[in-house]
Amino acid sequence: MYAEHMLGRTYANQNCSVARALEAVGERWSLLIIREALLAGSTRFGDFARSLGIAPNILTSRLDHFVADGLMARQRLSESTEKYEYVLTDKGRALFPTIVALRAWGDEWAAPDGPPTVLEHTECGGEAHQHVTCPACGMDLVLRDIDVRPGPGAKP
Amino acid sequence: MYAEHMLGRTYANQNCSVARALEAVGERWSLLIIREALLAGSTRFGDFARSLGIAPNILTSRLDHFVADGLMARQRLSESTEKYEYVLTDKGRALFPTIVALRAWGDEWAAPDGPPTVLEHTECGGEAHQHVTCPACGMDLVLRDIDVRPGPGAKP
Repeated sequence: MYAEHMLGRTYANQNCSVARALEAVGERWSLLIIREALLAGSTRFGDFARSLGIAPNILTSRLDHFVADGLMARQRLSESTEKYEYVLTDKGRALFPTIVALRAWGDEWAAPDGPPTVLEHTECGGEAHQHVTCPACGMDLVLRDIDVRPGPGAKP
Repeated sequence: MYAEHMLGRTYANQNCSVARALEAVGERWSLLIIREALLAGSTRFGDFARSLGIAPNILTSRLDHFVADGLMARQRLSESTEKYEYVLTDKGRALFPTIVALRAWGDEWAAPDGPPTVLEHTECGGEAHQHVTCPACGMDLVLRDIDVRPGPGAKP
């Protein structure tokens, strides 16, 4: 599972998609900014700063990092202004299931008063849930149902 | 969505299960240690240290934090030894879908040579996938299908 260095100093010997994902979004403010963009639809610097209570220098650094990594695009609000917004790309939006999984864990294990919010399926009013399934047989999977095998990107 | 302070200094104004989940596991080494415990079955200090290349003082601090937060239990290996292992609790194992979701994102967006590993359903050989679904109507959900509503633990 662990081969040559792939991620430089921080994650030497981590040829693993979890490690690579965390390299992009592992610092905890990062996932909160992504949550804010995904679930509250925030795009403006001021909105992120206000909602999260995050220091401006950290927020700037995180947003720049997202733009450089292709998770967000920095777009001018109009031709007549120097104001910008930060819009999730497909790569950024693809973190939706991760945010849903983290939420579900927090709802179950760290919300003594019950879930602060629920994710409602707009069309039918059901409550969104995430699970791990096997598309081959349709079964819902838990950890003990699973083996880790080398994949196409495994290093020899 | 955001009310009174819940998480002390770091996440003031974050009455949100994502924030609370990240409070427990948001520092990026933490999720790699959990991944190692979940997917490689590691329980020993030396195994974590070797596989992750993590500095002993950071690893000690992370494992202590997991034990304090109830994600791992520290167990003596036998009565005749002072050696311990760190075993995931139900609360720790419940991070499995989060790890699967992060892996899936890394496989899709940060694995140019293809997924380093695959999670195989032991019984049938299918490849585990993570989904967000609506249990009420059975639909697979994406971000645009969802509204965020106050939940039972919302603060007035």
